[in-house]
Amino acid sequence: MGKGRVEAFTDGVAAIIITIMVLDLKVPEGEDFYALLPQWPIFLCYVLSFINVGIYWNNLHNMFHTVQRVDGGVLWANLHLLFWLSLMPVTTAFMGENHFARVPVAVYGLDLALCAAAYAILVTALHRLHGQDSAFARALGSDFKGRASLAAYIAAIPLAFVNQWISVAIYVLVALVWLVPDTRFARVIEK
Amino acid sequence: MGKGRVEAFTDGVAAIIITIMVLDLKVPEGEDFYALLPQWPIFLCYVLSFINVGIYWNNLHNMFHTVQRVDGGVLWANLHLLFWLSLMPVTTAFMGENHFARVPVAVYGLDLALCAAAYAILVTALHRLHGQDSAFARALGSDFKGRASLAAYIAAIPLAFVNQWISVAIYVLVALVWLVPDTRFARVIEK
Amino acid sequence: MGKGRVEAFTDGVAAIIITIMVLDLKVPEGEDFYALLPQWPIFLCYVLSFINVGIYWNNLHNMFHTVQRVDGGVLWANLHLLFWLSLMPVTTAFMGENHFARVPVAVYGLDLALCAAAYAILVTALHRLHGQDSAFARALGSDFKGRASLAAYIAAIPLAFVNQWISVAIYVLVALVWLVPDTRFARVIEK
Amino acid sequence: MGKGRVEAFTDGVAAIIITIMVLDLKVPEGEDFYALLPQWPIFLCYVLSFINVGIYWNNLHNMFHTVQRVDGGVLWANLHLLFWLSLMPVTTAFMGENHFARVPVAVYGLDLALCAAAYAILVTALHRLHGQDSAFARALGSDFKGRASLAAYIAAIPLAFVNQWISVAIYVLVALVWLVPDTRFARVIEK
Repeated sequence: MGKGRVEAFTDGVAAIIITIMVLDLKVPEGEDFYALLPQWPIFLCYVLSFINVGIYWNNLHNMFHTVQRVDGGVLWANLHLLFWLSLMPVTTAFMGENHFARVPVAVYGLDLALCAAAYAILVTALHRLHGQDSAFARALGSDFKGRASLAAYIAAIPLAFVNQWISVAIYVLVALVWLVPDTRFARVIEK
Repeated sequence: MGKGRVEAFTDGVAAIIITIMVLDLKVPEGEDFYALLPQWPIFLCYVLSFINVGIYWNNLHNMFHTVQRVDGGVLWANLHLLFWLSLMPVTTAFMGENHFARVPVAVYGLDLALCAAAYAILVTALHRLHGQDSAFARALGSDFKGRASLAAYIAAIPLAFVNQWISVAIYVLVALVWLVPDTRFARVIEK
Repeated sequence: MGKGRVEAFTDGVAAIIITIMVLDLKVPEGEDFYALLPQWPIFLCYVLSFINVGIYWNNLHNMFHTVQRVDGGVLWANLHLLFWLSLMPVTTAFMGENHFARVPVAVYGLDLALCAAAYAILVTALHRLHGQDSAFARALGSDFKGRASLAAYIAAIPLAFVNQWISVAIYVLVALVWLVPDTRFARVIEK
Repeated sequence: MGKGRVEAFTDGVAAIIITIMVLDLKVPEGEDFYALLPQWPIFLCYVLSFINVGIYWNNLHNMFHTVQRVDGGVLWANLHLLFWLSLMPVTTAFMGENHFARVPVAVYGLDLALCAAAYAILVTALHRLHGQDSAFARALGSDFKGRASLAAYIAAIPLAFVNQWISVAIYVLVALVWLVPDTRFARVIEK
């Protein structure tokens, strides 16, 4: 089964998720600067989620590049990841509209953890399909960054009830770590 | 007429339908766990419809893979299927917001039945175009699963007025049957 | 300049327009059959506009198939057509929510007339680029159907103030005429 | 890294932005001509933003045509541009619903300035990757138009507080200048 249409569908869904998040940026009521003030937490959440979806799209882009083929399992593992990503607009708005309250911050972390877990499942499905000695397996290595992100997100969920700003700091830090380009797949592509 | 752009348009519409369904997951009002409670039926409906649209996309993906060409009839049969699929966000929300009441459950079944009927029409249009001896016809076989799903959905509509949970169970069961990958087209592709 | 990305962008915009129209099908308030009743005019408008956008996508699909190249003028003529098509969700909802009142029916006709005029401009831009003897020009012929549709839509605007059902009948009739597949481009493609 | 999927993702996001802007054109309340009157400023803003997003898509289309390859930096520079473009629906609606009040007009200019700055960053990232002697660098030249647009948008922000119509005139003028097709990249493509 060719990977072309899976890539196209994934790009389509990612493009739509990243754009419909902006629908939760409501038009400010009023026409002066004070009307913009209550929008700041929502805007910051939008920035964070835009970067997170961008990171996933970027990683999927690079990963599928080293992939030779897909099967039904990979296809559903990919749809499973897109499912949790598709909840990001609503969890983002929940966190923003409640000005980083504890429960919404924990729910946002839960969604990020489920995305990271779904990503790990997709990686495993591709690994099984391509085998230990494939270019894909070599590029992936031990996937420390992926597993560490998942652990950080899981830790952030209960920490939100201690102090939600610890959790928010974790979300920002993990995003920054991923913004540094993932050179693993790039190195294999260049060879 | 090439099949490439029909595939691209179908992928685009499926990607948008699957993502705009999330717009009906309203941001919970309130910032504690109790605010999330009334969202559960809506969330479960979203999961079910996400899987249903995923199944259709998956099946269309595999089916068009064995197809050699399309004509105007196929194109409109495909648009007809996309029409009933495009109603899934609104029928999903109708069922979720009314906590699986009888009429909304029946309406959701009607939409599923119309999707299944439109899929059967598309299959017939492709069958006529490619002939009895084509790779497409051999891959399709008797299409028992497709016809059985249609019958199950039609039965679920009146059953919703006996007990709506019977109908919901039918929707879940049919989805589970399709989640098992359709090996018919895959077998032909591998040959 | 290659035509591939213009096709892809056009498909994308058409796929989005055809799907966001469904956002105006509000979830019925109430859980019985009576809740569905006020939705009927909106639903019928949605069906009509779905078919209209489907016809445009179908025609653009066939037309770009016989086209060799595009330039800046074609690109903007295409965006101009997409602009008027993008207004179809809002004019559709305006007509449906007001149960086919005169002004909304006239406004819907105005949008259809502007789409048809934009289509004529796009055809002219492609004609100028490819010349009289091109496969495109031969396929197009005199474009009687396009010009007659434009005339019918322009006539429907004032007729809405005589009796709006005359205009609605015109919209349905023109759509039915186009649903009969346009064999002009198909004939050239087959040769 | 191939440029194909970056183009596809960019086209997807641009197609979605250009279409969801129409969601802010609310269905008029009432069924006569007076119901349409308050929609005019919103409609005019929609026209302006549709043209602006169209110009960016057109420019990105032409620019990526002369590009040989992309890297992680280009990918994120492109996402950065898409981020500010994705705010255009909300800044457009803010300006339209407040009938071109000063603060919304300034905010719209800020968004346009940030888009233009992001475009300049993307151009720089592509320039660095391809080198001084590349077809890309020759096509780009001094990029006077890009830098002049950025300067005009920056000037328009404070000018909105003197008289907002000066700023609106600047937005319209810059759009008209770009509507004249950018022959730089076209010239290189033809050679």
